Amino acid sequence: MLLLNDLKITRSELHDLLPSQNAEDLEEFFSHLAWSVICEPGDGFAGLLVSALGATAALNSELQNLTSQSVKMSLLESGISASELDRFGVFEVAHHAARERWRPRLSLGAVKQAISKMQQIKGFMLTPVSAGWPEQLSDLRYNAPMALWVRGSQTSLDRLSKSVAVVGSRGATTYGEFATEAVVAALVEKGISIISGGAYGIDAMAHKSTLALQGNTVAVMAGGIDKLYPSGNSQLLKRVTETGAVLSEMPPGSIPTKWRFLQRNRLIAALSHSTIVVEANWRSGALNTATHAQTLEREIYAVPGPISSPKSAGTNKLIAEGRAQLIVDSADLLERMGIQAKVPTQLELSGLGAIEVRVLDAIGFDSLEIAEICSAAGLTRDEARFGLGNLELEGLVARRGNAWAKTQTTL
Amino acid sequence: MLLLNDLKITRSELHDLLPSQNAEDLEEFFSHLAWSVICEPGDGFAGLLVSALGATAALNSELQNLTSQSVKMSLLESGISASELDRFGVFEVAHHAARERWRPRLSLGAVKQAISKMQQIKGFMLTPVSAGWPEQLSDLRYNAPMALWVRGSQTSLDRLSKSVAVVGSRGATTYGEFATEAVVAALVEKGISIISGGAYGIDAMAHKSTLALQGNTVAVMAGGIDKLYPSGNSQLLKRVTETGAVLSEMPPGSIPTKWRFLQRNRLIAALSHSTIVVEANWRSGALNTATHAQTLEREIYAVPGPISSPKSAGTNKLIAEGRAQLIVDSADLLERMGIQAKVPTQLELSGLGAIEVRVLDAIGFDSLEIAEICSAAGLTRDEARFGLGNLELEGLVARRGNAWAKTQTTL
Repeated sequence: MLLLNDLKITRSELHDLLPSQNAEDLEEFFSHLAWSVICEPGDGFAGLLVSALGATAALNSELQNLTSQSVKMSLLESGISASELDRFGVFEVAHHAARERWRPRLSLGAVKQAISKMQQIKGFMLTPVSAGWPEQLSDLRYNAPMALWVRGSQTSLDRLSKSVAVVGSRGATTYGEFATEAVVAALVEKGISIISGGAYGIDAMAHKSTLALQGNTVAVMAGGIDKLYPSGNSQLLKRVTETGAVLSEMPPGSIPTKWRFLQRNRLIAALSHSTIVVEANWRSGALNTATHAQTLEREIYAVPGPISSPKSAGTNKLIAEGRAQLIVDSADLLERMGIQAKVPTQLELSGLGAIEVRVLDAIGFDSLEIAEICSAAGLTRDEARFGLGNLELEGLVARRGNAWAKTQTTL
Repeated sequence: MLLLNDLKITRSELHDLLPSQNAEDLEEFFSHLAWSVICEPGDGFAGLLVSALGATAALNSELQNLTSQSVKMSLLESGISASELDRFGVFEVAHHAARERWRPRLSLGAVKQAISKMQQIKGFMLTPVSAGWPEQLSDLRYNAPMALWVRGSQTSLDRLSKSVAVVGSRGATTYGEFATEAVVAALVEKGISIISGGAYGIDAMAHKSTLALQGNTVAVMAGGIDKLYPSGNSQLLKRVTETGAVLSEMPPGSIPTKWRFLQRNRLIAALSHSTIVVEANWRSGALNTATHAQTLEREIYAVPGPISSPKSAGTNKLIAEGRAQLIVDSADLLERMGIQAKVPTQLELSGLGAIEVRVLDAIGFDSLEIAEICSAAGLTRDEARFGLGNLELEGLVARRGNAWAKTQTTL
């Protein structure tokens, strides 16, 4: 019970703690940060309480140790339907379990420490009440993050309204790196921001390629952003903070655990308008990102690869199962994303019909009269004339006196 | 008109020409061979007449130069509907055009020569009236071949009831050759025959791999099979005739023209229960085979490849457009073909839930008591116990006194 009381904080203390924050939404802002410290990512029960009651009221109900019955009444009064609550099972049981999870972390000290750490590293925080909160995160509903802890620029986050996630295997092959560069180049050229996870391999290549092209890139971390993880990418991630952003829903000091990596992937998927998996083996985290994108009904694309490459097994399988669209090339990707209209290729324009092909076959390397063409091609005079007319329009045959010949010998 | 009369042949002359043929269907058999000499492949108007009236009656109507009106009456009497005839446009015009195509080739000499050539090279002929005619060809309806000119064994053709076409680029890459071998090996092991076009590249590799595994393979040629085309593959194709078969719908002496190559592809598609494209560039003939397979509503599969390889551009596009199913690996191919049931992998069997993952994260490299696990994982006691129970069943954790530890350090 001592820990509970510990979170009580006066309004003037709040002002001192968050001097640059609007007075208007100060408490809601702080309460969201507190929830971000208290919960593991994707805690749907916390999400329910916060989205229905507001972060402060939800926090107070916990600090005051209100009965489950009373919390349930508040939820129903807020407009949450009884059937919606049923999704969490017996409400009292779910609430009791949630309290048991939250209680050991209900510490004012931890929240203050996280905020002060962010101030030290010149980071900033965003919550759903902040201007500049990425609206697309609301598609996660109760599993939306409570806050984002950010190093970098707000402008970079604003540009995520046009963004694509590019993710893949940590152990990328040369082919995967090539494909990442190709895909990123096509997107960045169209002003699209690139979101990834900052990991080794494809993720790193996605960030690097975007930086090289002076595009906007955002890295979403599984743990606290006081440490740029993995350490081998810390220089790269530092460069990302300089023009783009590195962010996490976990406060500084949080360790990146496997669970948090899996939950981090839902943020990558939710922040992006579509997700591209470049290389992934059968059990890659990138496939988990694709699953989140699928749940959110966002488009998923995958780069195909050799059936002999384990790093393409996961992407090929995504495509085979109809979960991802196959990327043929950059032009095709942009077209299917609705970014660029398709321009018909010369080959498609010059598609020949059956009669034209038979006439060309008949002519071969010779110069033939129509009667000869008919006999050789097994066509009627009218058909042969029709075919020759079309071929002449295409510039593929020319008349020489009474005979016809090819203008070129490409066939 | 002289040419027309030229095709008249008495029954005893027929017996001398085709001594091993059943007396019963002798005329129909011969007439189909004659039509095969007279028409270009896929002549739908000839197909209409032959399938409605029979090959002999259809031939006689041409030899006797019956009026279009009278031929049309016969067709309607045979049960062909007027709307079916309308598909050919104005009947008299279509018939006139067809006659103009056929007349220069209505030569008894040419038919006799083709038959005698086949006898010389110890080949044999099949027509729709022959026992052993591949029934699947009837799916081509009016475009079905009039006859097959075959070198090889009837047994090989009989085995096509379980067959797959494996086709692809003439300029195959090492990857394409590897993929062909892998796909063919999986199919041949299951007793499936491999059909291809005898061309360089993927086709040749498909035949070679099948022969190496002592499987059954059939090559479908665009021109006459007196010449094994292309000459660079003649040794390979000769080996195909020894256990399998090389066949064509064109009589010996026919030149393989571009038109005939395109039409040959419809035979490959129609003879096979499904078609696999291994490598193909944007305008490969293999894509034409896929189009025929699609028209016939046969399954199409494609081997994916790097987006950087022009030889995979066609196959990747087939998949992207939803025209072909992506082949992940041999096991997946057999499963989707309904040949082999899927066996769940060890990885899938040991799929862990969210709670289990969080418990494993919490334990890390330590040995922890339940209270410690709850605090580290943000889980309730019940949840932690539930997760530990499942992990214990999977053999991933073990109890040591009051504490729990991992049994292995794979995570």
